[in-house]
Amino acid sequence: MTDIIIHGGSVITMERDDGTGIINNGAVAIKGDKIVAVGETADIMRDYKAERYIDATGKVVMPGFIDAHMHSDMALMKGLAQDSNNWMQSCVWPYTEVITTDEVKNGSMVFLMEALRAGTTTFCDYHEYVYDIVENYKALGVRACLAQAIQALAPNASDIPIGELYPLENKYEDVGYQKNLKLINEYHMYKDGLITGMLGPMAPDRVTKEMMLEVNETSKKYNIGMHMHLSCGTREINQMEKRYGRRSIPLLDDMGLINERMIGVHLSVATDEELEHFAKKGGAMVLCSGSEAIIDGNVPPAFEFSKSSSRLALGSDQTAGGNTSNMFNEMKFTAILNKCKFGDPTVFPAWKVLRMATIDGARAMGLGDMVGSLKPGKKADMIIVDFQKPTLTPLLFDPIRNIVPNLVYAANGSEVETSIINGEIVMENREFTRVNEKELIDAANASARALAARTKDKMVKIKNDLYMMMQADRI
Amino acid sequence: MTDIIIHGGSVITMERDDGTGIINNGAVAIKGDKIVAVGETADIMRDYKAERYIDATGKVVMPGFIDAHMHSDMALMKGLAQDSNNWMQSCVWPYTEVITTDEVKNGSMVFLMEALRAGTTTFCDYHEYVYDIVENYKALGVRACLAQAIQALAPNASDIPIGELYPLENKYEDVGYQKNLKLINEYHMYKDGLITGMLGPMAPDRVTKEMMLEVNETSKKYNIGMHMHLSCGTREINQMEKRYGRRSIPLLDDMGLINERMIGVHLSVATDEELEHFAKKGGAMVLCSGSEAIIDGNVPPAFEFSKSSSRLALGSDQTAGGNTSNMFNEMKFTAILNKCKFGDPTVFPAWKVLRMATIDGARAMGLGDMVGSLKPGKKADMIIVDFQKPTLTPLLFDPIRNIVPNLVYAANGSEVETSIINGEIVMENREFTRVNEKELIDAANASARALAARTKDKMVKIKNDLYMMMQADRI
Repeated sequence: MTDIIIHGGSVITMERDDGTGIINNGAVAIKGDKIVAVGETADIMRDYKAERYIDATGKVVMPGFIDAHMHSDMALMKGLAQDSNNWMQSCVWPYTEVITTDEVKNGSMVFLMEALRAGTTTFCDYHEYVYDIVENYKALGVRACLAQAIQALAPNASDIPIGELYPLENKYEDVGYQKNLKLINEYHMYKDGLITGMLGPMAPDRVTKEMMLEVNETSKKYNIGMHMHLSCGTREINQMEKRYGRRSIPLLDDMGLINERMIGVHLSVATDEELEHFAKKGGAMVLCSGSEAIIDGNVPPAFEFSKSSSRLALGSDQTAGGNTSNMFNEMKFTAILNKCKFGDPTVFPAWKVLRMATIDGARAMGLGDMVGSLKPGKKADMIIVDFQKPTLTPLLFDPIRNIVPNLVYAANGSEVETSIINGEIVMENREFTRVNEKELIDAANASARALAARTKDKMVKIKNDLYMMMQADRI
Repeated sequence: MTDIIIHGGSVITMERDDGTGIINNGAVAIKGDKIVAVGETADIMRDYKAERYIDATGKVVMPGFIDAHMHSDMALMKGLAQDSNNWMQSCVWPYTEVITTDEVKNGSMVFLMEALRAGTTTFCDYHEYVYDIVENYKALGVRACLAQAIQALAPNASDIPIGELYPLENKYEDVGYQKNLKLINEYHMYKDGLITGMLGPMAPDRVTKEMMLEVNETSKKYNIGMHMHLSCGTREINQMEKRYGRRSIPLLDDMGLINERMIGVHLSVATDEELEHFAKKGGAMVLCSGSEAIIDGNVPPAFEFSKSSSRLALGSDQTAGGNTSNMFNEMKFTAILNKCKFGDPTVFPAWKVLRMATIDGARAMGLGDMVGSLKPGKKADMIIVDFQKPTLTPLLFDPIRNIVPNLVYAANGSEVETSIINGEIVMENREFTRVNEKELIDAANASARALAARTKDKMVKIKNDLYMMMQADRI
């Protein structure tokens, strides 16, 4: 007897090499936290019995999304940093320098709920507050792969004139590192992998060389990933060249850090040669299309990377940039921004970005044996998407099946009806089963208003672009 | 006594020059098909009484969107033409050459419902079947501005070798023109403007010079727009140079067609000089960001156009390209694709694209006195957007109001709760008041499957890119 059988839907297994793999009328059987069978509906219904049956006729059953890079601690800054110059200094820091841990928690919860409603089941969160908000993931019942940020800059680093080398102090990075170890020791492989840990060095220019070596050793010892902003912009490269006379990737390579545990986020200013070398040595790339486009008007070199490796994952980054934690957005943006970058409609077809958001993303994050596809033995993380909506009509199978193109180019995320994580239904018919959405939204609004009020004096003084737009009655 | 008062919400009037105009706690009073008052909630509630009150606390009240260019007749091709080479010939024509009028009607209905659910209230439809589907607009109760396509190509034009001049035959264009006149005579200013008519010459290379002159005269006589694909691609320019020795815009200008009634769609290959000239003579531009990006990997020169004119509107084009009729998508794509085109995050800020989707779009389409903003005397076309959703949390007013950035960068359309068109509530709490959505989806699916089946032999023969991807189990 299994626990749940979902039947009668089109099942996207993501088990086909270099493809997706679709069973037009398929079923999935779940027992405990695992998938026990995937196949034709007729076969599964004949061979298995379940406590509960879910009819997915006219719907699509597929792996939940892996959001490979997010800073959920910045969620209360939604809509407060777009269309602006001096993103970090003028728009983000006025909030981050005064935010409280409680505010971070309340904001993070909304970010996670938004993502969960849009089909994300694995959350790779990475920043300063990750250890402090573990309860959020537990409350929602979602899968999390967490990296506590490690960085060596003094709190007053923002005062250092732009272009000058900033001092790296071991005492600061050690605080983060110890917290990261604590996170790993307490939560890595919590509930057989519902939570896993990673190491979170902030960027090559923001930790010492010694710390990078230490992080690499620890990553090897625990066999966990190093989640790191890498080759993100010219500021980083300038710092690296001033400090070490080397660019980021060559230096890290010499130090032994470019390996299959390295997860490089953004890679925006990596050269083609660096990218190829990084990819061939097993490094994974995380691409945040929405955020990079909005913050910098930039399309990172993911298509270039994809020529050498499929270890490519998508991330929603943060609301102060991309402004959503919706992986449908990330798939869509990744496909269309790269088509426009290369002036070619065949660049990054739908099936390819769907792989990045599921199986390729899972593998890139070291979670490929656990999630990212529907296969007996893997964890039962999946979503049911309702194709009986105007956005996803018509649903066709022959001579061309339009399911995958429509998931990427037509869906907006509101068609995700049910989410199952670790065998548990955490959202059903668009309702969360474990938390009260309205109460959490109210709490986030209260926190955000308190936080915003504390930034007021500074905003009046620095007059960032959005503040000035508001004075002109434009926003 | 008014009919409806919506109160307690944030009202975006779009009445602020070069901005938006927001009342934090505002109200709108509606009587019949018109807006009678817009103001502070306290003032409106004191000065007016209504049959019905709608509490919009925590929500945003704003003008519905103007979708300035759509081919709803192609809706059944959703997800059947992306990621491919030879878009028109290999992906679109196998369907359009065998589709029936009934199938067009059923498909169009789903396209319109998708748009209506995402906040569109004015539908500028333009193609061969527009006259045949007028009942769809009437059934849904939406505002429509319709152009019947006029074109002089013989039905077998697809057999002409690429690059050769195609013959233009007056007898074909005359059929379309007569149908267009019929549409205008029967429906222009139907219900005081709930439906208006336009002229629909297909493109400068697809109608004769005589027809263009005739269309211009008729447009002047009725004071209605000429909705026309213009400077869309190199094929058009090649045809124009071969036939007339001139590029499209200079030729049309000599003929007197570049005026304030000309609505040029796409303008992708217009030169900077042509764009500036076109804009300064009062021509309007319609931009279809999603469709252009997906079909051609192209970002049309809208930002360049915007330097000379604000007569700039957004359109969703068709599902065979952009794949949605969701104006939130168009706003978002327009903002981010142009940021990436120019490598500048300040290009096309949220307030600017919101204008394109509302007041600027309405003015571009010649409907500026009727819709596009909330102002006493204008038609009562508006939507209520629920900001008590994770996607739109937090909702902040001070020191920076994040409503407009979040509408553009965070909303996906599913937050539109209620739509009022011409004073009538046509969608309330996400339910249509006039039609049965499920029945219409079922009808569209049945039509699409019948249509797809008829394309099978051809697909097997031409093996377009998506068909081949399906054979490889990629889609």
